[in-house]
Amino acid sequence: MKKFVNDPKDFVAEMLQGLALANPDTLVYVPEYNLIHRSDAPSDERVTIIQGSGSGHEPAHVMTVGPGMLTAACPGDVFAAPPVDYVYETIKRLASSKGVLLIVNNYTGDRMAFEMAQEMASAEGIDVRTLFVDDDVAVQDSLYTVGRRGVAGNFFVMKAVGAAAEAGADLDELVRIGEKVNAATRTMGLALTACTPPSKGTPLFDLEPDKVEFGVGIHGEPGRMRVELASADQMVNDLVEAVATDLQVTGADRLALMINGLGGTPISELYLAYGIAHRAITAGGAQVTRSYVGEYCTSLDMAGLSVTAVRVDEEIEQLLAAPAEIAVRVF
Amino acid sequence: MKKFVNDPKDFVAEMLQGLALANPDTLVYVPEYNLIHRSDAPSDERVTIIQGSGSGHEPAHVMTVGPGMLTAACPGDVFAAPPVDYVYETIKRLASSKGVLLIVNNYTGDRMAFEMAQEMASAEGIDVRTLFVDDDVAVQDSLYTVGRRGVAGNFFVMKAVGAAAEAGADLDELVRIGEKVNAATRTMGLALTACTPPSKGTPLFDLEPDKVEFGVGIHGEPGRMRVELASADQMVNDLVEAVATDLQVTGADRLALMINGLGGTPISELYLAYGIAHRAITAGGAQVTRSYVGEYCTSLDMAGLSVTAVRVDEEIEQLLAAPAEIAVRVF
Repeated sequence: MKKFVNDPKDFVAEMLQGLALANPDTLVYVPEYNLIHRSDAPSDERVTIIQGSGSGHEPAHVMTVGPGMLTAACPGDVFAAPPVDYVYETIKRLASSKGVLLIVNNYTGDRMAFEMAQEMASAEGIDVRTLFVDDDVAVQDSLYTVGRRGVAGNFFVMKAVGAAAEAGADLDELVRIGEKVNAATRTMGLALTACTPPSKGTPLFDLEPDKVEFGVGIHGEPGRMRVELASADQMVNDLVEAVATDLQVTGADRLALMINGLGGTPISELYLAYGIAHRAITAGGAQVTRSYVGEYCTSLDMAGLSVTAVRVDEEIEQLLAAPAEIAVRVF
Repeated sequence: MKKFVNDPKDFVAEMLQGLALANPDTLVYVPEYNLIHRSDAPSDERVTIIQGSGSGHEPAHVMTVGPGMLTAACPGDVFAAPPVDYVYETIKRLASSKGVLLIVNNYTGDRMAFEMAQEMASAEGIDVRTLFVDDDVAVQDSLYTVGRRGVAGNFFVMKAVGAAAEAGADLDELVRIGEKVNAATRTMGLALTACTPPSKGTPLFDLEPDKVEFGVGIHGEPGRMRVELASADQMVNDLVEAVATDLQVTGADRLALMINGLGGTPISELYLAYGIAHRAITAGGAQVTRSYVGEYCTSLDMAGLSVTAVRVDEEIEQLLAAPAEIAVRVF
């Protein structure tokens, strides 16, 4: 295993230590709960927004904490849902009088942890609501999921509700916005290689040199089918077709379009893929009004990418365009 | 070769098409010269800043064009210096009455192209100056270089002169600032794996499963030595020691510290490495006042990272903190 790792058991804790050291003024790290939160939270000026999920998907979600995005994140170990007490403690510590919004990608383990924590916190009088994200069109049920999986499209839900919360919207309004954005969002991904979890030390699944996993999940779950490695044009066009078909894109639509790298694919290839996806999805007259290219929700060092399209209206566009500031910093 | 590529000959052009499609309002793409420039350039309000270099190092430099950073970039093919006429045409098209600043990472091919283009443009009365960047402490001379190589520390030169140019500084002042930042910057990298250029289709060099290249160049050039794969602590501490020794870091120093991913290493590992580097470089009392973690100058899909330290003063800190906006967008 060629990785920057010490003891694999310390992988997540050491990553979070680095994140905290790189952002000493803006983030607070609470090691007991893998908790990263805004240093200016909680605030009764705005609803608290929390997302957990397993680690290994960075920047989601610990590196998307900041003004206009998440209030806090409390990840589990690599590809493991956070324990219930992480979520419960995070809710308790960060609760605002305006309430708490939980965002949960649709995996059985995550749902269980967040639903139990919500119940415990609600019993203590904290106003908690939950948004489930299920943007992945690849498969209906999956290894760790009943219903569709939540993947990179989750970014748009976080961004929209984060912007609204920053502007003072109440909890009902955030739930309305989050459900609206999730309903307008579709994603599908493709793996060129498997990823290697630090504690396993070997690739999570076998993928032949001439094959790709079409519709892969972000934990290496099987997709729709294993197909031949093909040209970028063919692979990306196939992803766009799956997404656009499910979203029922028409020539009248305005869209946000994202190419999300899965961790091991360089940004040069992501931009090349973006060009293909943009041409394909606008061929029938739809307009792309906002573009996103980079890593948003990864699968450790997996080579591959996903395509996300969001049908936007003026409200969603304004929320996506609002300023936000997170740990991943170019400057 | 598992990559998102069509015909390898079109790799750079298709990447630039994607970049332009993702940034229709802010960037202009001129296919004949691989030229990406700010849509609001040239402007006689500010010096024009141009960087070229080979492709394969993205986001450097085509994705670092924008307000507060580069005015334009004109890359060559993957790992190949831009042809002289690309540089010359870019200077001619983007020249400002305040002059043109070229930034060149120190490689023989790049120096040749930029020096010839500068001569041609100067003969036509354009005021052109050049900054050479040579921050890599790994080796004195290298495969493609006499003297030290220019690598990820180049970001700090771009950022500082970009901020000064945006504020209206003249060409002499930009040269002074750029030389000062370059003199205060040191980098060293390490490869866990080789990279695979699209046109070659196989890894650029052989690296045994239990070995790493300590001091690797961003085109796969040999470093100081090939050593055993070790813990993250040991590998990152060794890089920090090389950088800190060369920069002669003392307990009185204020530093900017960067962990730069080489393309195939996920951001989780980069933050883990940042924590190690931060602890190591501050152990003697030096302070880190600005932190950078991510991909700044890559080597296609190479797994690995580099550590950069910059000795900063108030002037450099202010220039680094100034706002800037480039194509790589999280929001």
